Order: sequence, then structure tokens, then C-alpha cells
Amino acid sequence: MSGKTTIYDIAKELNITAATVSRALNNNPKISQSTRKLVLETANKMNYKQNRLALALRSGKSNNVGVIVPRINTNFFASVIRGIEEALHPEGYQVIICQSHEDKNREIENINTLLNAQVDGILMSISNLPNENDHYLERVIQKNIPLIFFDRKKEMENVSSVTIDDYQASYEITQHLIEQGCDKIAYFSGDRTLEIYEDRYRGYQQALLDNNLQINEDYIIPIKSNVVEGRDAVEKLLALENPPNAIFSTSDFAALGAIQKLKERNIKIPEDFCVFGFGNEPFTKFMELTISTVDQAPLEMGKITAQVFLDKINSVGNKKTGKTVVLMPKLHIRQSSTRIPLI
Amino acid sequence: MSGKTTIYDIAKELNITAATVSRALNNNPKISQSTRKLVLETANKMNYKQNRLALALRSGKSNNVGVIVPRINTNFFASVIRGIEEALHPEGYQVIICQSHEDKNREIENINTLLNAQVDGILMSISNLPNENDHYLERVIQKNIPLIFFDRKKEMENVSSVTIDDYQASYEITQHLIEQGCDKIAYFSGDRTLEIYEDRYRGYQQALLDNNLQINEDYIIPIKSNVVEGRDAVEKLLALENPPNAIFSTSDFAALGAIQKLKERNIKIPEDFCVFGFGNEPFTKFMELTISTVDQAPLEMGKITAQVFLDKINSVGNKKTGKTVVLMPKLHIRQSSTRIPLI
Repeated sequence: MSGKTTIYDIAKELNITAATVSRALNNNPKISQSTRKLVLETANKMNYKQNRLALALRSGKSNNVGVIVPRINTNFFASVIRGIEEALHPEGYQVIICQSHEDKNREIENINTLLNAQVDGILMSISNLPNENDHYLERVIQKNIPLIFFDRKKEMENVSSVTIDDYQASYEITQHLIEQGCDKIAYFSGDRTLEIYEDRYRGYQQALLDNNLQINEDYIIPIKSNVVEGRDAVEKLLALENPPNAIFSTSDFAALGAIQKLKERNIKIPEDFCVFGFGNEPFTKFMELTISTVDQAPLEMGKITAQVFLDKINSVGNKKTGKTVVLMPKLHIRQSSTRIPLI
Repeated sequence: MSGKTTIYDIAKELNITAATVSRALNNNPKISQSTRKLVLETANKMNYKQNRLALALRSGKSNNVGVIVPRINTNFFASVIRGIEEALHPEGYQVIICQSHEDKNREIENINTLLNAQVDGILMSISNLPNENDHYLERVIQKNIPLIFFDRKKEMENVSSVTIDDYQASYEITQHLIEQGCDKIAYFSGDRTLEIYEDRYRGYQQALLDNNLQINEDYIIPIKSNVVEGRDAVEKLLALENPPNAIFSTSDFAALGAIQKLKERNIKIPEDFCVFGFGNEPFTKFMELTISTVDQAPLEMGKITAQVFLDKINSVGNKKTGKTVVLMPKLHIRQSSTRIPLI
């Protein structure tokens, strides 16, 4: 750490106390605008970077950041959290994690817990019922604690978000399946009250329309993200008078269940039936029949979410602005949907 | 909630204040032994159960419990945490989670973070370097905050632990492989400075000895728990003059890597080579060739760990005792090691 500029160096340079430097850097209202400006300019000139000690000097700051996710047991959320930690730990922040279990009441409890633990910010992916009142989210903003959404967001003034382009991912998947010769594409939908699932549905719909294919309501099956629901959905689809010849599942787990059931029925994949998942869970590439899916760039999403938080907490003034980052998804086209080999 | 006995009911019954009841229930030293005894007896008689409110009344208590795991991205740790939450949430506790990333310094930071967040207890699975000094763990005990280990523990006075019998699991796996006709069993070892990995190694060793099989040091390969290390280890083993005909991997991920590489070399599983994993990660049963493994009862482990914490925090006096719970592992014998069909 030696060689780095500290607040003491800045204090010495300006012949003021380190406490004044700290207060100026942390936007304490007791410090005049002119002093603050001078300190910031000097800090900049001396290439000062706020470190753990400096952060700790902020009165009432804990250097803890809270992360709320629906659940930790998917590769996606675990990887986002890893990205968040990789970006925040070098800056002196500790990350504490809570699970909402897709339950709005648990989410409110999580927020209270994190506020009581004096976190400096809350990074969250919201649970499945965003249409209810959101007073509990406004409490966070009123306390002037940065709130940043990732993946699953709610439109709120002054709140930043980092998401992927779910519409685009979904459009590209549906287009790919059509190019592989599938003209009856079933769709496993998540909870469409959530923006990400609605966006995915729109992408699917638009790709069908753009290819002059009709939307068949029998092919739209709402599922929870697990293997059993994928198996059950295939049962339903195969019982239709006019069964589909492809499935686009918004869950890798349900896609896996679908593949298991299709194989049990001796339906050949991809020759007779194509399957596409969503999420790039590790097992999708471990299977003997590898599963096509979308990578949601979770590590990058976590790192950017952390950076948006850092920018917000380190910005001087102008705190009441929201930033919207949209990442581009990456399709992994594998055996379960490849009739025509890629060049 | 109506119909339940509250501290106010107890207060009325004894003609004392609710605050006195609360203090007595929470072992506050200001309350005399005789009053405490009377309150406890009455509470018992009236079938009183401490609820969220009562817990909140404890001065300085947060109703938060901290959980520290090496990482959240395995089914095992995610499931233990689910078990912990399922047991603690109905009791009014919120669970906050930290990852140590197998790094002792991160673990110390985690503990400080949780202590600063005023947690009422810390439930943890320790990182890979338990032999270093453990003053930071003693700090928790000195603060009279219950510390409970699960899965990976350190022997410490007055500290409870909930583990599975790793020795037994390992012995049974090795015995099974021998019964399937394997006489050259390689062993993928974790970090043997950790008690669980040393116990597993001892189980493997003892089963070989009991079957008059020699231990071949070339067959013992230390690995990290991932697919690539499993693949690399197989490369090494197949290059030996006298290669093995089975692998017992203490990691499911490394077992998967091993299977991938063996297949690439056109070695038939289980006919020519048996593989056994550890951990019952979901993918082990998803594979076309299902992978034999051990279930470590993570949900049960989590629930019991939570119960040990509740017993400890709700016990009156006598707090300085440790409890040791050892769960029995359950082998899942699947295709990757089944030459002789089970009856």
C-alpha cells in the first residue's frame, strides 16, 4: 500500500486536517464548497484513490453492501454475486447476501435487515411480484442509500439498473429455430408480470410475426424453472392434436426436463425436435446432447452493477440520477438445436 | 397469532411488568435467579414460545444470523443455507450470507462484517486453512455469540458442529468399488489440511487395507473441485505404466471431468473403468451416464445447524457447552460404477 496517496498527504499539501479532507471527500455539508473544490482538485492532482481507511472514516458508513437475489442456487445469480464481489472487494467493501425466495414479504424483511445492518448500498434483483406497492423500495431511496437493480428491475425514478436485452435474446433464439426448419415453436414462459419474462415473450412473438408464423396459444406454457415442470409441459404438448416441433424454454432446467421426456418418447433431437434453453447453466454443456442456451453475462453484469454503485456513492452531488445499462446476450448454439451445422 | 401466549400474559399472571418478563426470559443479569425461575416455570406452564416480538425485545439483538460459506455456487452449500433459512425464518430470524472464497483473510473480514451487523449468531463452514491461528474465531466466542460449524469444522472448546461422517462415506464408496471388481482405485483428494478431506482419505485407505489392497501413491491426486482438474488428473493416470481401473473423486465436478476424458479415450464406463463422485450435485443424475455419488444431506444439515443455534441461544445459563452432531451419508449408486446390477 506504500507509495499511495493518503488523505494525510492531501491534508499536508493543503495545510488542513485529515478530518477536513475526509469530510470534503465525503460531501459532508459542514465543509464549504470552496474547500471541497480545493480538496477534490488536489486529490485528483495527487492521484488519490479512496481506500478502505478513507471509506471507514465516513461517519455512519459500514463498508458493507447488501445484495438481494431471489435465490443463490442458480449459476446465474451465484455468478452475478461473484462479479459484484470481485469489483467491490478491492474497494474495501464487504458483500452480504440475502435471499428473497421470490416472496415479496421476505424481500421487505431483507431490506429491513440490510438497512439495520447499515449497508452503504443495496444491489437487488426483484422477486416475482413487482406490481404491488413499492413503498419499501422508496424507503431505501429516502435514506439516500444507492439502490441498483440487476437483471430483474422495476422502473423507478433515480434508480439505476443493469440488465441484458432479453427481447433481443429471445428474438434471436426464435429466429434461429425457424432457420433450423422449425415452424411450430412452443414457448415455456416464466412469470410474465416480471419485465424480463414479458420482454422475452415479446421477442418470441415478434420473430414469429416477422416470419409469417402464427402464434398458437396452446404452445405457450407457463412454467417454474425446474426439471419436473419441463417434463410435464412436454406431456401436455405431445397430447395436442397438432404438437410442436421445437421448444424455446426460458429456463435451462425446464429445457433439460423437456429433453428427458422427449427422449423417453423416442423423439429424436435435433432431427425431429429442437430445444433451446436460457441461462447457460453449467450442465447445459456437460450433457452428452449439449443444450443450446443463452449466456446472460452474469459475471459482467455483477461487475457493472458494482461499478454503477461505486460511481454513485463516490460521485459528488448530483446523486439523484439513475443509470441504465443494457448488456447484449450471447447465444450458445449447441447440439439440441443444430440441424444445419454452423460454418 | 391470536390465542398464543405473549409475555404480557405471563406478566399479568405474575403481576410483574412485561419488561421484567422479557429480561428474565433473555437471561438479563439484572433479574434475580428466583424471578427468572418463576417466569420460566410460568412461561412453560402457559406454553409460551418466544416469538419475533419477544426476540426483538432483547436489547442489542438484531434477529439476524450470519452464515459464512466458502462459496454459494454449489448445490451443497446452497442447500445447507436453504435448510438454515427454513428452520430460522419461522423463528423470526433473518439470514445474511457471506462468502469466504476459501480465503482466511476474507473469512476474518466476513466475521468482522457480521459482528458489526450485530448478528445473534454465526453459522459457518470454514475455509481451507484451518491450521493458522484462530484468534478471530475466539473473538466471536468472547462476545458470547453462538458459533456453530457445519460440514467443515475446527475443534474448539464450547463450539458446536454439525457434520456428516466423511470417513464412513469414503469407506463405503471404496468398498463398493472393490465389490464391483476394481482393484486399482485412484483417489482424487481435496485439501487434506481440512478435516473432512483427511477423514475421507482415511476411509479410502482403511477400505483398501481391509481388502488387502496396496496403496499406490501414484494414484493419489490432489485436485480442486472443478471439471478441468478432473480431466487433467485422468491424463496423468492414463500415462502411468500401471494405470488404475477406477476413480473415487471427492468432487462431483472432477468426477465429471474424469468421465469426459475417459470417454474421449474410448474407455468404457463402467465395464472397463468405474467412477464415483461426492456431493450429489444435480447434474450427476441428469447425465446420460448417471454418476454415482454421495448425498451429504445438506438440507438436513442446515436445519439441524439452525436448531443447534436456537437451542443454544434459547438455553438459560450453561451456555458454554458444545454439541457435536454427525449425520450419516447416503450413497447413490448409479451407472458410472454399476457393473453388477443391484437387486
